[in-house]
Amino acid sequence: MTPDEMLTGKYISMLNRLGQAHLAAKMKAHDIGSGQYSFLLILYHHDGLSQEALSAKLLIDKGTTARAISKLEAAGYVRRTKNREDRRAYHVFLTDKARELQPELHQAIMEWNEKMLEVLSPEERLQLYSMLKRISDNTLKNLKECEGTHTTE
Amino acid sequence: MTPDEMLTGKYISMLNRLGQAHLAAKMKAHDIGSGQYSFLLILYHHDGLSQEALSAKLLIDKGTTARAISKLEAAGYVRRTKNREDRRAYHVFLTDKARELQPELHQAIMEWNEKMLEVLSPEERLQLYSMLKRISDNTLKNLKECEGTHTTE
Repeated sequence: MTPDEMLTGKYISMLNRLGQAHLAAKMKAHDIGSGQYSFLLILYHHDGLSQEALSAKLLIDKGTTARAISKLEAAGYVRRTKNREDRRAYHVFLTDKARELQPELHQAIMEWNEKMLEVLSPEERLQLYSMLKRISDNTLKNLKECEGTHTTE
Repeated sequence: MTPDEMLTGKYISMLNRLGQAHLAAKMKAHDIGSGQYSFLLILYHHDGLSQEALSAKLLIDKGTTARAISKLEAAGYVRRTKNREDRRAYHVFLTDKARELQPELHQAIMEWNEKMLEVLSPEERLQLYSMLKRISDNTLKNLKECEGTHTTE
């Protein structure tokens, strides 16, 4: 690995922060912190997921997840219900307010992608997407294999 | 933009979280939260930077920066001194404890880059790095131009 390639993670982290800053600016009026969008984006496709499953899906630790969900609840975007069998487990449901926000949030995300990719040719955009998908899928697969190893040990 | 390309930001965000999870696991013994590494990594090259400059360099808002620096201070990794001219401004300095951590932190970051890129050929790694650098540089340039516009308006 060349010293340059070592900086791949640095640029990923920088681009992630730039994206969060873009979203924060676009969604300023809506009282949502930058770390909270990811939860809404998952819930739009998996409404009613448990807090634990949200945490696992996003690879965000349980404490941070609990704080983010509390903030979203206080701001009126989600409500929590207790699991009938396990009273310590919560399921998270979107409110109408969150549903109404969806088009605007998707628009802001689309704008961010366009802004970020404007400097690349159509072929490069596709190349970048496909490489990021491959490394992301591979890393997730490795992670799951490791977790599998841990639990059977 | 194809629907696939719209997901570029999603993969960047996912890879960033995977990287943070990797670092958190590797650095577990050191009492540092996942959001706090970025500050140390900047300070290794710019020791004594003001809290405001750290916040601007990392594009992390002032409140989050202040909380991260407080935690790093409480854990003994940085100390703060007040600016002589502006008593509300703080400069942040690394402690010996933080300096001692540097090789281990760099090792963990190197491992993460290797893990993440293992699925790509040497040519693809270079391509990915160079595309991420271009989109990152371009987005930062646009952001600075916008800020310039705002301040002169």
